[in-house]
Order: sequence, then C-alpha cells, then structure tokens
Amino acid sequence: MTELLKEFMANNIPTVEKRMQELVENIEAPAVLKESMLYSLNAGGKRVRPLFVLAVMDHFNVRNDDGFTVAAVIEMIHTYSLIHDDLPSMDNDEYRRGKLTNHKVYGDAFATLAGDALNTLAFGILARMQQIPPVSRLLLVDKLSEAAGAEGMVGGQILDIEGETKQLTLSELENVHVNKTGALLRFSIESGAIIANATKAERAILVEYAHHIGLAFQIQDDILDIEGTTEQLGKTAGKDVASDKSTYPALLTLVGAKEKLQDHYNLAIKALEKLPSESSLLKDLADYIVHRNK
Amino acid sequence: MTELLKEFMANNIPTVEKRMQELVENIEAPAVLKESMLYSLNAGGKRVRPLFVLAVMDHFNVRNDDGFTVAAVIEMIHTYSLIHDDLPSMDNDEYRRGKLTNHKVYGDAFATLAGDALNTLAFGILARMQQIPPVSRLLLVDKLSEAAGAEGMVGGQILDIEGETKQLTLSELENVHVNKTGALLRFSIESGAIIANATKAERAILVEYAHHIGLAFQIQDDILDIEGTTEQLGKTAGKDVASDKSTYPALLTLVGAKEKLQDHYNLAIKALEKLPSESSLLKDLADYIVHRNK
Repeated sequence: MTELLKEFMANNIPTVEKRMQELVENIEAPAVLKESMLYSLNAGGKRVRPLFVLAVMDHFNVRNDDGFTVAAVIEMIHTYSLIHDDLPSMDNDEYRRGKLTNHKVYGDAFATLAGDALNTLAFGILARMQQIPPVSRLLLVDKLSEAAGAEGMVGGQILDIEGETKQLTLSELENVHVNKTGALLRFSIESGAIIANATKAERAILVEYAHHIGLAFQIQDDILDIEGTTEQLGKTAGKDVASDKSTYPALLTLVGAKEKLQDHYNLAIKALEKLPSESSLLKDLADYIVHRNK
Repeated sequence: MTELLKEFMANNIPTVEKRMQELVENIEAPAVLKESMLYSLNAGGKRVRPLFVLAVMDHFNVRNDDGFTVAAVIEMIHTYSLIHDDLPSMDNDEYRRGKLTNHKVYGDAFATLAGDALNTLAFGILARMQQIPPVSRLLLVDKLSEAAGAEGMVGGQILDIEGETKQLTLSELENVHVNKTGALLRFSIESGAIIANATKAERAILVEYAHHIGLAFQIQDDILDIEGTTEQLGKTAGKDVASDKSTYPALLTLVGAKEKLQDHYNLAIKALEKLPSESSLLKDLADYIVHRNK
C-alpha cells in the first residue's frame, strides 16, 4: 500500500466510524436495538465503500463534512446486508471479521430487525442532509435505493442463492457480482461524484471505473478464499471450494482468475485516464483492491 | 359501514393495488424476487393505510395520481414488516389473511430478501415522484424513515418482543403500539396532508387524530383476538390469551378495553372537529376502525 493511501485511510476511517456511532446514538430507540446496530457497525472491516466516496470527492478537491455522512450511510447499508446474509436461513455464519455475528449475540429476531433498522435509517439520514441541495439529495436516495434493492444488491443476493444449486456460466457469475457487491460499490463512487458536483461525463467515467473495480474486488475475494487462511481473513477460508460454489477460479482456474483480475484492473486504470486530471488516490485504491490479502 | 366509505373503498383500493403491481413489475430484478414481493402485496388485507392517505387528500379536495403512489409505498412498507414478522425467528406464522405466509411459499431466505427489497424500493419510489416538489418529497422520505425504522415501527417490534417475557404496564403497552402500528398509521395520515399542502396547524391536528386512531386500531385488534374466530380474522384467534401476552383486555379486562377504545375514538373525533371544515370520510374511517370485525 502506498504512503498516500495509508495516510488517507488513517485520516478518514476513524471519522467515518465516529459518524456512524453518532448517527445511531442520536436516534430515540430501544437501547438493545441501538446496541445491536452499533455492535455490527463497530465490528471493523476494510471500510472500502467509505474510502471510495471520500477519494472521489478528494479528486474533485471537495473536502466537506457531507462526505463522511454519506460514507457512513453506505457502510450502514453494507452492514445491514451482512447481518441478514449471516442469518441461519441464509449463509449461517457464526463469525465475521473474527467476531461473533449479530444473531449469535442478539438472536435471529433482533438481528433481522437491526438490519431492517439500519436499512431504513440510511434513507432518512440522506433526506435530512440540509447542506446538500434538495435535487442532489433526492438523486442520492433514488440511486441508493436502486443500488441496494431488488435491482442491485438484494437482487444479486437472490441470484447468488439461486446459483448455489447449479453451475453458472461466466456471464451469469458476472451478473451475480455486478449486482450483489458491484451495485453498492458503484454507488459509493457515484455518490462522491454527486456531492462533488462532477459533470455527467465525469460521473460516467467514474461509474466505468467502479464497474471494473467491483468485479476485481470480487475476483480477489474468490482468490483469497483459496489462497488465504481463516485467521488472515477473519472468516472461514476454503468455503467456496468445500461447497462447490461457482467462482472465478472454479470457472477459469486460479491462473485464469488472476488474469481476469488483471484485465479488470487495467480497464479500471484506463477509465481513470479519461478524467481531466490525474487521481493518485483512486489509482492507489485500485491497487489495494487487487493486492489486498484480507 | 357508511355508503360513503363503502364507495370510497370500492373506488380507490383497486387503484392502489394496481399501482403496487405496476411499481414492482417495472423494476428489473430476478423473476422469483418480484414474484415473492407481489405474492405478499397481493395477499389482500384491509388497506387501511392507503385509505387514510387518500381520505386526508380528499378532505383537502386534492385528488391526484400522487396519492395512489404514496399509498402503494406505505402498503409496501407495511407488507415487508408482515413478511419479516411472520418469519420462524419472529412470530412463526404459517397463515396470514387465510393464505400461506411468504416464507412458507418461498423459504426463509427469499422471504427475508423480499422484505428487504420492498423496504428499499419504497424510498426510491418516493424520491422519484417528479410531480411532488423536491422539498416535500424529501420530507416524505425523512418522515417515512422515522416512522418505519428504529424510532417507529421497527423499534416497536423490538419493544413488543421484549414485552413477551414480562408483564407490561398500561403505559409500556401503549408505547409498544404507538411505535409498532401507530407510527406508520400516523405517517399515512401525515403524508396525505403533505401532498395536499396542508398547513402545519392542520397537519398537527391530523397527527393528533392519527395518534388516537392508531391506539383504537390496536385495542380493537386485541378485542378481536378474544371475540373473533380464526375463520373471520384469517389468522389464528385466541393467540394472545394462549401466549399470556400483555394486551388491553389482559390489563384492563374486556369491558375496560372497550371503554378505552371508546375514549380514543372520542378523542380522534374531537381532534377532527378542530379542522376548518368537516370531514365525513375521516369520521367514517374512525367508525370503521372501531367497529370492524376482522
């Protein structure tokens, strides 16, 4: 990781985490509900989506408080999806990032409701961001709903579950990931551009970058499931192979998956080069996504 | 039921149901997900919340297409809450309105995701309602998030579950219902006032009416659990007594609960009388809530 990115992370991640904490602490709700929401929000993670929001804003030289709130909102949506994904009726995971999953601590009912509460809260926070012009705020709500719902993340979850019982083609597998993880990642990048008042053309370039970053992210996830250890990942390694899941290495061999990863990396970098000015941070983030070991 | 209300229902409920159908059909999502969302949306129900949206608009002589969309959105949120509420980890209900519950047809994972998709879709639809001025649209998103989330419906669900293992006081019981069912009902009434450009004073009067209607609705629910039959209700009657649940009749006796119901009805009507003009429909709806037998 470059010094630039390391410093950017150290300067920004704590602020995003503090913002999430404040946003949940400020609501009037039963104590146990707030506690379970905060339990999962504070369970760590790479905070990749918040970093993309802020890196895009930084590219346009816009550094204001709104970025942290939007970053916190996106991380709330990501966190709710993990809470529901870990439930016994879904992936039935007991550990996430080395900590007990939400339902192992609070029970299945409260975990379901903590997820629902985070999902619902996210939209209210966006709507109440007085500093952002109304039309931009509505665009954020509109696009987050699309990215997180049936047309994006939730739809991708459905495709992923359906895919467990059959052999997927490469294009079907890509479609799972474009929705399941890609849609929210794209929104992270696009939301940064919306807050920074980027032009439509700039937004389109960034969405193209985001598309390839999202796929690269997932391919590296599949590779780490094979090459990583449970300790290093904070979740059970080798799960995909054990469950005979359709993954990039399963479809393309490990060597083929690594080539595909490189292809998407190259296309992401190529998209960035179309921007009027250089963005070291966005390039560094692409490197990080491809080379991360957890 | 008065002829006026009967006609109002016949004229409006089919349009709301058609709107829900269209809004879900129009999204690009996996077929099984749309099917399971529609299964629960089309499973019938009293459509009380949509009726309140439209009756309030009617009171202000505003009859436009937006009311149907907002009514459909609120019914989507209500439906998602029922899907999650029926899950084995929550109430574990097999039937709702005489039909199999969502998870009995589609499985627990898909039911969880269908609920998540409806919740998420609701906010996107509001944000995209081009006919409503941006600031009003943002107010709708803001207030729906508050009513449906940790500070309202989801928080009330948590209180309800916590209450299952202890004897609640009357004020604790009231707090459960003010949140669990009251908050979304209040939003139905307030959203109608927002679309109709009601004054702040008028909105406050209607929120007062809504508060008492919400409690009356719940007390009648508790009474029907004792006096109704499973066939008539479309859900298992006598469940509250069997599970020794804190209800109005349990805390106040059946006679006491009926008196309380009448008190809230009277207070709702008294609130209505503060409005500049009479509202027959809102009075009829209050009567219906109190006298309904399912």
